[in-house]
Amino acid sequence: MTSTTARPNVSVGGYLARRLEQLGLEHLFGLPGDFNLALLDEMLATTNLNWVGSGNELNAGYAADGYARLRRGPAAFVTTFGVGELSAVNALAGSFAEDVPVVHIVGLPSTTVINHGTLVHHSLADGDFGHFVRMAAEVTATAVVVRAHNAATAIDQALLTAVGSSKPVYLGIPADVAVAPISATPLSRPLRVLRSDPAAAEDFRDALTEFLGGAAEVTVLAGPRLYRRQLEQRIRAIAAQNGVRIATQSASKALLDESHPANLGVYAGAFTDNAETRRHIDEATPLVLSGVVLTDFLTGSFTHGFDPEHAVDLQLDHARIAGNAFYGLYLEESLRILEEVLESRAPRPAPLPRRPVPAACVHEPADPRGQLTHADLWPLLQDHLAPGTLLVAEAGTSFYGALEMTLPDGCDLLGQPVWSSIGYTLPATVGAMLAEPDRETVLVIGDGSAQLTIQELGRLLALGLKPTILLINNNGYTVERAIRSPEAAYQDIVAWNWTSLPAALGAPTTPVYRVDTPAALVEVLEKVRAETDQAALVEVVLPRDDAPESLLHIARSVR
Amino acid sequence: MTSTTARPNVSVGGYLARRLEQLGLEHLFGLPGDFNLALLDEMLATTNLNWVGSGNELNAGYAADGYARLRRGPAAFVTTFGVGELSAVNALAGSFAEDVPVVHIVGLPSTTVINHGTLVHHSLADGDFGHFVRMAAEVTATAVVVRAHNAATAIDQALLTAVGSSKPVYLGIPADVAVAPISATPLSRPLRVLRSDPAAAEDFRDALTEFLGGAAEVTVLAGPRLYRRQLEQRIRAIAAQNGVRIATQSASKALLDESHPANLGVYAGAFTDNAETRRHIDEATPLVLSGVVLTDFLTGSFTHGFDPEHAVDLQLDHARIAGNAFYGLYLEESLRILEEVLESRAPRPAPLPRRPVPAACVHEPADPRGQLTHADLWPLLQDHLAPGTLLVAEAGTSFYGALEMTLPDGCDLLGQPVWSSIGYTLPATVGAMLAEPDRETVLVIGDGSAQLTIQELGRLLALGLKPTILLINNNGYTVERAIRSPEAAYQDIVAWNWTSLPAALGAPTTPVYRVDTPAALVEVLEKVRAETDQAALVEVVLPRDDAPESLLHIARSVR
Repeated sequence: MTSTTARPNVSVGGYLARRLEQLGLEHLFGLPGDFNLALLDEMLATTNLNWVGSGNELNAGYAADGYARLRRGPAAFVTTFGVGELSAVNALAGSFAEDVPVVHIVGLPSTTVINHGTLVHHSLADGDFGHFVRMAAEVTATAVVVRAHNAATAIDQALLTAVGSSKPVYLGIPADVAVAPISATPLSRPLRVLRSDPAAAEDFRDALTEFLGGAAEVTVLAGPRLYRRQLEQRIRAIAAQNGVRIATQSASKALLDESHPANLGVYAGAFTDNAETRRHIDEATPLVLSGVVLTDFLTGSFTHGFDPEHAVDLQLDHARIAGNAFYGLYLEESLRILEEVLESRAPRPAPLPRRPVPAACVHEPADPRGQLTHADLWPLLQDHLAPGTLLVAEAGTSFYGALEMTLPDGCDLLGQPVWSSIGYTLPATVGAMLAEPDRETVLVIGDGSAQLTIQELGRLLALGLKPTILLINNNGYTVERAIRSPEAAYQDIVAWNWTSLPAALGAPTTPVYRVDTPAALVEVLEKVRAETDQAALVEVVLPRDDAPESLLHIARSVR
Repeated sequence: MTSTTARPNVSVGGYLARRLEQLGLEHLFGLPGDFNLALLDEMLATTNLNWVGSGNELNAGYAADGYARLRRGPAAFVTTFGVGELSAVNALAGSFAEDVPVVHIVGLPSTTVINHGTLVHHSLADGDFGHFVRMAAEVTATAVVVRAHNAATAIDQALLTAVGSSKPVYLGIPADVAVAPISATPLSRPLRVLRSDPAAAEDFRDALTEFLGGAAEVTVLAGPRLYRRQLEQRIRAIAAQNGVRIATQSASKALLDESHPANLGVYAGAFTDNAETRRHIDEATPLVLSGVVLTDFLTGSFTHGFDPEHAVDLQLDHARIAGNAFYGLYLEESLRILEEVLESRAPRPAPLPRRPVPAACVHEPADPRGQLTHADLWPLLQDHLAPGTLLVAEAGTSFYGALEMTLPDGCDLLGQPVWSSIGYTLPATVGAMLAEPDRETVLVIGDGSAQLTIQELGRLLALGLKPTILLINNNGYTVERAIRSPEAAYQDIVAWNWTSLPAALGAPTTPVYRVDTPAALVEVLEKVRAETDQAALVEVVLPRDDAPESLLHIARSVR
């Protein structure tokens, strides 16, 4: 800590922003407020971080979440004390539930105000400034109020926690701390994510080799936590090994291309589309779970037929083999070891027979001029999607419709099947597209959901992003109607004029369409594909109580 | 608890709804979700509560808050576990900070799921179902998860706490508990708010009589907590006593008609407009504080010159006289005793000289065809307001502009000067107007604020409510620009086409106007007044950095 040369100084806000840059962030989300203006100035003045204002704080949190998912790394957003941070807490909880490393940075009143319990605005007027950080602690891996004297350490440890645990963290920064000068020396060593313990890795390798033995076939269930470590390539390498079959979860549907011969498709217990896939996973020996999440929707309401205690279970920060735990072993490393162990098998297993790949065929609606229904919508959209597209699908009819599709190679499905907060995908699309600006993106979202976060449509278009947005207009909360009381007043929403919205929200040149027949949908999708240099909003009118078959199945189980 | 006659049963949801009806509620706000559908059915089927869906949960919480404020009593809203409740937590915190008794009812997963820690959607997928109730406990007077075996008691005590403390409360109701049958017997005795302790009241009366002594003049500072007990009439009766002068706080600006001869106007320490009012309060002996809140904005950044420890301080659930506390004494009772003590003074003080009331004069803009500015906007709006109008003013330029007006008799100002969460007033106007549907209502809100909660404009118009909405378009967060860095990118918002919004949000027949000169404003306000049977949206274009003088003053103090 001592040095004979003069140490350069940096403000705490500047230090934090530089650390975020070192972690690869190019954008910073959020809203200004009374207690974060100095912080924002420090963060933006000394870095190349691009500010992305959001319509409100919940949307900023969702946008940061989408950005982190597509970056396969952390994202950050800034709000102000009390009124700002609390509006975003639902987004933060969603990031926790779905393992997304979002850094929530909150500008607090000055240390003097906090220490004296001064009754400032944006507080509960009870002198207690600990309420909101305690709330944040419930939905983050760590929540700290930064002090100047150990600011660098507090910031570094929180960022390492976010990256290491793939969970959100909370950094409260008092206004005086934001501008306090601290040593810039630590910045000369970029943060390095913790590596696995070599001894644990060796133990694991030995145990895995023994467990897999000479199995001619190894079955892998690949879950969404693999995305968080950008392990798609590793899964592809494993899939290329002889004797390996891979199923995905609905939250990781096309993690391996759906046309890949080793791909068994999506497994979700009793909700699995293909009976053969279900049987294969339920009866697999040995079974390797990698980055798997076992929540209700992802297991067909806990109807999965395998026992994780009899399998290999590779998680973000530890692994298990038939119940024996290997701590200090990260998913990157355990999956690398899996690949090596498979590679070194002797004798090498024979290739498995190729799965029959259904012949590509274009969907023909029974009645092209009749009322469009989910039964036609998803096959027609499947035919339209270009390889490599990012498909974002809102919770409800959209996500379950997307699950019924076979996605072209290179496509990804972005949704939120664990937290399932409606309205999430519109702001998340803003973040996702900023992370991958050149990727063709299609968002499918229902009317009930879109109303929750509609302000972000204006920001999305103002940023010049160019998604195709399919707005499913089915007159309310169809997913809730499927569960119970479809006629209840609480299922209704206000009928908006969807095609007027882009102009009202400041983007009058955005092409808008409204379709209610299969033929019109096909025509518009073709037109939209030809106009790749613009966003498009397509209002897709569907019957109120129509839903994808898979959703009706799940609704019955929720009921 | 025992009875020889058969006891009628009611479901827990039905019981709660009946209790709310007994407390005078006619509306229930919220959104449906997977875990509250059965609860909603129970609550709505057996009562006359009218369901008011909101665009999202934050807006539902704000609407309930506005409803409670105008009702001068409790309000309730319903959300679903996790994703719903967390979106509303900012509204709940605002209700806490500003003493508004809002009941947040949350539909939880079933008791079995909670007890087993099942990994259901809308949870953090960590098996802990206590996260969100612990978060709610930070911003409510009480937060409980209701069990069937003591549901009636838990519900009754939470409702009594809300009413007694004038703070929000949280009731989490598992799906199985919502439909569980319980005895309806307790419903035959409506809840009675706790009365003051007679002994404490007697002590207080004696001490107050001694403290006021034979003072020829008694000065009262009347704060916003008086609204929560509907004590405006009591203040008027006290104001009619000889020798009494009354000032209000900015949060209770027109609690006593501003034309009343005893009204000294708004007191806010160094931010007080009138130097004579400031001196009067700072030097008053004796001084009576009633329902007063001493936060930064309400005290001119703590520049008030009086010491509450030397005054009479009447609070919601206790009183103090020169520092001596009288617990168990509610504001209704302490204020009633104040009136009696004043009434019984002998000899009766002489009437104070009447304050000169400025002659009514119509504002004449210097340049009627020039650019409209705040200097003209507020005086012109003052001339337009009808007596009895509810003026709702958003935090920022709108609220401080409203403070510069002299309001006609019977007007009230609704704002949120303690919590100051931008976007609050648009949903709050929905709730306020449902509570007082026949009252002329004017909402003034800035563009930056309106973007946060814009979905509620659609709901407001769909409900057939008829406010006049003045949408201040000044290109961003002017209040934040006044504090710091007016040119920073984070101060910008997306430029919306405000006059297109009513049509896009489903109300194409709503009259819309856009004005940027004083003359145009006057013309439109006159037109709007003539069309009382409709809502109207008036976009008021103002220069980006223009602000009411009082706001610039406060911005300097925040800075």
